[in-house]
Amino acid sequence: MWFFFALRICRVAPLATHQGKIRMTTNPTACMILIGNELLSGRTQDKNLSWLSPQLNELGITMQHVHIIPDDAETIVATVNEARARYDYVFTTGGIGPTHDDITTECIGKAFNVAVERNAEAEAILRGYYSFDMLNAARLKMADIPVGATLIENPVSAAPAYKIENVFVLAGVPSIMQGMFAHAKHLLKGGKPTVSRQLELWIGEGTIAAQIEAVQHRFSAVEIGVYPTMKEGKARTTIVVRGTDEKQVVTAMDACETFCDSLGIQRITHA
Amino acid sequence: MWFFFALRICRVAPLATHQGKIRMTTNPTACMILIGNELLSGRTQDKNLSWLSPQLNELGITMQHVHIIPDDAETIVATVNEARARYDYVFTTGGIGPTHDDITTECIGKAFNVAVERNAEAEAILRGYYSFDMLNAARLKMADIPVGATLIENPVSAAPAYKIENVFVLAGVPSIMQGMFAHAKHLLKGGKPTVSRQLELWIGEGTIAAQIEAVQHRFSAVEIGVYPTMKEGKARTTIVVRGTDEKQVVTAMDACETFCDSLGIQRITHA
Repeated sequence: MWFFFALRICRVAPLATHQGKIRMTTNPTACMILIGNELLSGRTQDKNLSWLSPQLNELGITMQHVHIIPDDAETIVATVNEARARYDYVFTTGGIGPTHDDITTECIGKAFNVAVERNAEAEAILRGYYSFDMLNAARLKMADIPVGATLIENPVSAAPAYKIENVFVLAGVPSIMQGMFAHAKHLLKGGKPTVSRQLELWIGEGTIAAQIEAVQHRFSAVEIGVYPTMKEGKARTTIVVRGTDEKQVVTAMDACETFCDSLGIQRITHA
Repeated sequence: MWFFFALRICRVAPLATHQGKIRMTTNPTACMILIGNELLSGRTQDKNLSWLSPQLNELGITMQHVHIIPDDAETIVATVNEARARYDYVFTTGGIGPTHDDITTECIGKAFNVAVERNAEAEAILRGYYSFDMLNAARLKMADIPVGATLIENPVSAAPAYKIENVFVLAGVPSIMQGMFAHAKHLLKGGKPTVSRQLELWIGEGTIAAQIEAVQHRFSAVEIGVYPTMKEGKARTTIVVRGTDEKQVVTAMDACETFCDSLGIQRITHA
């Protein structure tokens, strides 16, 4: 198992392409699968990606792809199988509760072609948490776990998450997901965290596009993103320099600051 | 072309699976592809899905899958090609600005195997919007459009969106994307909007899981979602009934209200 992981983690994955050049990272890669009709319909705004991605980055794991999919068995099985073959780690959120629309666990069983069975350890956890009259058949369903999975503690509401091979099956409620992840971190093997610097400017991005591109060409080990926003009808631009080599990131950002200052571009300062 | 669309739109797509039962919708399906490293890293929270999905639903188009992917050419091309074969409509957001990291249009060209060329109409729009000294080479790049695409007006910042076959290529900045979509709506052919009713309760979802499932079994034409939240340590549950047949939705929600009232479950009311 660890040999399998080691092989996967050493794989070189493309991080980003600019103008045909491909820069590579040896960091492990991650994919999130956010499961729930309520996310797709726009009823619920996902908050798990923006929380988990920085957590993974601190461990040196790079988020590469996110799927948002409905509570549909065929879609869940196909998406999990595609993602676990392609990325080092897969994190699913949602669909592991007690109600009829919680179908993630049965789908994980199908995806791995293993049975989903009552797990004695998970059942004991639920029996310790719920009073006798509260632990009905629906809640006991949360102790049904794919055979071969490793349980992950849920410090918020007891019913455990689990890991099966490189797939981590987590809750959708953010506070519960976060509690579970704290108990899953030690199972992850990362690389080098990506660090970033940003510069906010009172200017339209198009005006300085050529200068930013020139800096990107000089520093191919970093990734420069340019993000436009508007405030009170005035164009603003944020330049973000990212990379795993902090020195390169700082030097590339210095180059951006130098050309901005030489052009007299006003920086946005936050008091 | 319209024959092609008519064929696609009549396709029957699975909407949701519960316990092995598949309900079908004849509504056209949609996929969103949210392009940008800043979304994957967690730096920027996407706001386009939660805006576009209800807009499409009003037209009777069902959001079925969302991808969030990096500014990586290979990933963009592969994701666009997979999505346009699988769903009736595809909407991309992001990566059509003037800077070096805006690579969506060149990727769309590659995906469709067509050239990306300076579009005279798009160039005229940019020349009418920008003063001579502002219209540099970087901004003119926004007039490079895949051959065969239909331009879509951008009422906010001029540089047009476009549609090529069933793929709509939109901006990432929400206000710009929304303005573009207003000018793209007439190009879409929809079905029946999904309507929904919801009921918020002071109870843990597991306590009433069996009763909700019984209602789901009685009303197979609706989709019942159950969403738990916590407030000040107290468990709350929202039951959401959705479907294209409003009468069925209302009747199924009545059945939920009846069992909740009979069990004396306190409703959450919003003053």
